[in-house]
Amino acid sequence: MAVNFSNDPTAVGFFAPTRFEADVLECEVIKGEVPKEIDGAFYRLGWDWFYPPRLPNDAGPFSGDGYMGMFRIRNGRVSYRGRYVRTPRFLANLEAGRQLFGVYRNRATDDPSVRHINRTVANTAPFVHAGRLFALKEDALPVEMDPNTLETRGFWDFNGKYRAQTFTAHPKPDMETGEMICYGYQATGDLSRDVFVYFVDRNGEVTREVRFQAPIVSMMHDIAITPKHIVFNTSGFVTNPEWMKAGNVMWGWDPSAPTYVAILPRDGEGKDVRWFKGPTRAAVHLLTAETVGNKVIVETPVSDGNPFPFFPQMDGSPWNPKLAVTTLRRWTFDLSSKKDTWEEEIVFPNAPGALPRIDDRFYGLPYRYGFMGYADPSRPFDEKRAGNVGGRVTNVYGRFDLRTGRIVGNYFVGEVGSLQECQFIPRSRNAPEGDGWLIGVASNYAEMHSELVIADAQRLDEGDVARIRLPFRLNSQVHGWWANADQLPLV
Amino acid sequence: MAVNFSNDPTAVGFFAPTRFEADVLECEVIKGEVPKEIDGAFYRLGWDWFYPPRLPNDAGPFSGDGYMGMFRIRNGRVSYRGRYVRTPRFLANLEAGRQLFGVYRNRATDDPSVRHINRTVANTAPFVHAGRLFALKEDALPVEMDPNTLETRGFWDFNGKYRAQTFTAHPKPDMETGEMICYGYQATGDLSRDVFVYFVDRNGEVTREVRFQAPIVSMMHDIAITPKHIVFNTSGFVTNPEWMKAGNVMWGWDPSAPTYVAILPRDGEGKDVRWFKGPTRAAVHLLTAETVGNKVIVETPVSDGNPFPFFPQMDGSPWNPKLAVTTLRRWTFDLSSKKDTWEEEIVFPNAPGALPRIDDRFYGLPYRYGFMGYADPSRPFDEKRAGNVGGRVTNVYGRFDLRTGRIVGNYFVGEVGSLQECQFIPRSRNAPEGDGWLIGVASNYAEMHSELVIADAQRLDEGDVARIRLPFRLNSQVHGWWANADQLPLV
Repeated sequence: MAVNFSNDPTAVGFFAPTRFEADVLECEVIKGEVPKEIDGAFYRLGWDWFYPPRLPNDAGPFSGDGYMGMFRIRNGRVSYRGRYVRTPRFLANLEAGRQLFGVYRNRATDDPSVRHINRTVANTAPFVHAGRLFALKEDALPVEMDPNTLETRGFWDFNGKYRAQTFTAHPKPDMETGEMICYGYQATGDLSRDVFVYFVDRNGEVTREVRFQAPIVSMMHDIAITPKHIVFNTSGFVTNPEWMKAGNVMWGWDPSAPTYVAILPRDGEGKDVRWFKGPTRAAVHLLTAETVGNKVIVETPVSDGNPFPFFPQMDGSPWNPKLAVTTLRRWTFDLSSKKDTWEEEIVFPNAPGALPRIDDRFYGLPYRYGFMGYADPSRPFDEKRAGNVGGRVTNVYGRFDLRTGRIVGNYFVGEVGSLQECQFIPRSRNAPEGDGWLIGVASNYAEMHSELVIADAQRLDEGDVARIRLPFRLNSQVHGWWANADQLPLV
Repeated sequence: MAVNFSNDPTAVGFFAPTRFEADVLECEVIKGEVPKEIDGAFYRLGWDWFYPPRLPNDAGPFSGDGYMGMFRIRNGRVSYRGRYVRTPRFLANLEAGRQLFGVYRNRATDDPSVRHINRTVANTAPFVHAGRLFALKEDALPVEMDPNTLETRGFWDFNGKYRAQTFTAHPKPDMETGEMICYGYQATGDLSRDVFVYFVDRNGEVTREVRFQAPIVSMMHDIAITPKHIVFNTSGFVTNPEWMKAGNVMWGWDPSAPTYVAILPRDGEGKDVRWFKGPTRAAVHLLTAETVGNKVIVETPVSDGNPFPFFPQMDGSPWNPKLAVTTLRRWTFDLSSKKDTWEEEIVFPNAPGALPRIDDRFYGLPYRYGFMGYADPSRPFDEKRAGNVGGRVTNVYGRFDLRTGRIVGNYFVGEVGSLQECQFIPRSRNAPEGDGWLIGVASNYAEMHSELVIADAQRLDEGDVARIRLPFRLNSQVHGWWANADQLPLV
């Protein structure tokens, strides 16, 4: 049975699977100069179907094979390497020569021959802690990869001290303490309400575990930390045994599901979790949070409806693109109040975007700036040259001043491009917050290749300081991570 | 100094450098089925500028960095791997971040810092002998590569027993004796007239050396062998110290240069070489030869003028595309005659092509069939969809019956493609001559990717039995080689 994507309607154009692993020993710089101060690696993880999906109702961004990319930057030169994550699933498929696994997080849809094989695709977010590089996805343990060769080393369970069956795609580094705060939801198996939280020290040792239960089974994709609290949230993405039995992807959108937010004191136990309850929302990716007196303030992109068209509406209603629009909002939780609700303020109503970043050095610390790609419809898009790429595209990176509520500078990718999630590179170890560069990948639709762009984070309006051309399209990124050379044993 | 090809006018479109190394763990089969009987590797070597040329008068196909591709075929599945040949030159450039080497085979045009570094790009032909894979180019010793990983192992000098400074891109295997017959011209240094010939047994041991001198310094690219003789030839590509001093590529075309052909008895010494002299010709690649009684019959593509526009006319005349047309001809040398000339017969006047192959098992043996890509202008070419690829393209593989002078079947690549040199895969070890498949790479200009095509060599008119899609353009091939799994330690 030969590999053939001709029956896969998504395998065309810029977003078709790339299907190859690549090394570009030195990349072409088509504009500007790569700052010589930059020394580190920009990792990007995403999906790339190596074999076509087994079932048409699968969700590519969640089920496509994990593919890690690395831009190594040093001395003004850039190299690129891309490798599939060799998960047990990837290897089982490779042996069979076809896709054996069914839809996202629903084992009943798999080929019976792989019933006992871990089905993660490890395709969501790269993360670096204690000198190790991980490929993360919330349905399994971290997959460790060699930070230079991108060889897959296998699952990492923290010497047996991490006991959840799952691990978030978005642990949080506390740059003050060096700790990593991480968790797994559905920690004891599919559809369980168990959440296990772990504190891991700067050497990678688990120092503490906290267990609690969520009121519902819902996607709990990200958290935010402050020096005193950890914030968890559910969303309209829920599931149940009947939904699973019908052969669906795990998540459906329930337009009537309340949103639950858990606030756990960092020194507390499971019993100390305080739950809040609000209207249906999706806050998939949290920017970050602060504790100010008795208040916990979370700043995060939020949508009122289903942001992911590939996860069906549970009530059979059509997907509503208006309710999918995600804007940066402020959620204020008053711990001194007896109420179980919170205040929501839309801080940036006109900058729709869903993948926010901060200067990573300020996780768990007071902060002022956020960085995020968003769609600015006032910018030109040359549909004729770019071809039919559909919808409105993320065409700018903005610098968001959370103190004033103003966007202070944005970077425009150009008339035939779009932008993927950016990362922040500090100018130096002790540079002030936000002093550094944004780095991210642009899709050049007109020329069908990808570009790496580097812009001065404080001078976004001046355009990129360097633009690097890849000789091919890159696979679709979900998230990225920047690692300075002092954080990994980079060669 | 950053890598930037924007000043290189050749770095656009389908023939621009690819600049990356790649693995496709399993290729997509878009048509037909890969015959399960095929077990081996199709290697293809060619050029791909990793850094732009140092000088505008360089000759890409001769100076672009060597790049080896491997299609491993087994159990009806195909994988692809592509790697640059890590020559000393490639590594020196990589360290410097730019092209340090000047024009083809003219060391005076190099950066002074690399005056002592071997300047071969090893980009002409793969070859397999005694269980080793080589990347060959006529200006240096063979570069050995790992047949599975394509890792470069370095120069190979046959345990010190090969004493020429150069090694042909086209040694000949004698399938009857298991020998490899090889040689170097300019064997004692640039512009020397020395030719050293070596006989290497099936275990890779040099058993004999023959030395002679050519009457002129000229490109001596290929040889033909029969059970009794070895045939060498010069062409209109010549050089001299003044030409070199002017900063030219080594070869210029002299429209008045005679062609010299040397016939060496296989059991003879240098003194036994018999020289023939004829009108200006280029017979760059010889199909093969036979000894019949006192006659040596060579069948080979020949042009009356310069076939390579990138090697300048020495007299300053414009390149003449009509004289560049290469047709399959028969040269008959009568060893019983005292004359130093030969008879030329144009056997296939209407099938212009320059890269002929036989069923490799018949090198040195009586044979009947040749296989060659050629331009058939009666076939459609959709210029609008294919884009401007220029000139007339090689669009068919033909099966040439040398006994009858007829083309018995040809394979047409399609309206938007062209074909690179084909190789022959025997159906089984003892199958009759020509019973097997042709394999080669097609360029799909409309979709800007390459395809591997496999056609039944005895049923070319029926089209390909399998067509494999690469997710990118491949680099420009010069030559290929097919190795059955029993000829190399393939995994």
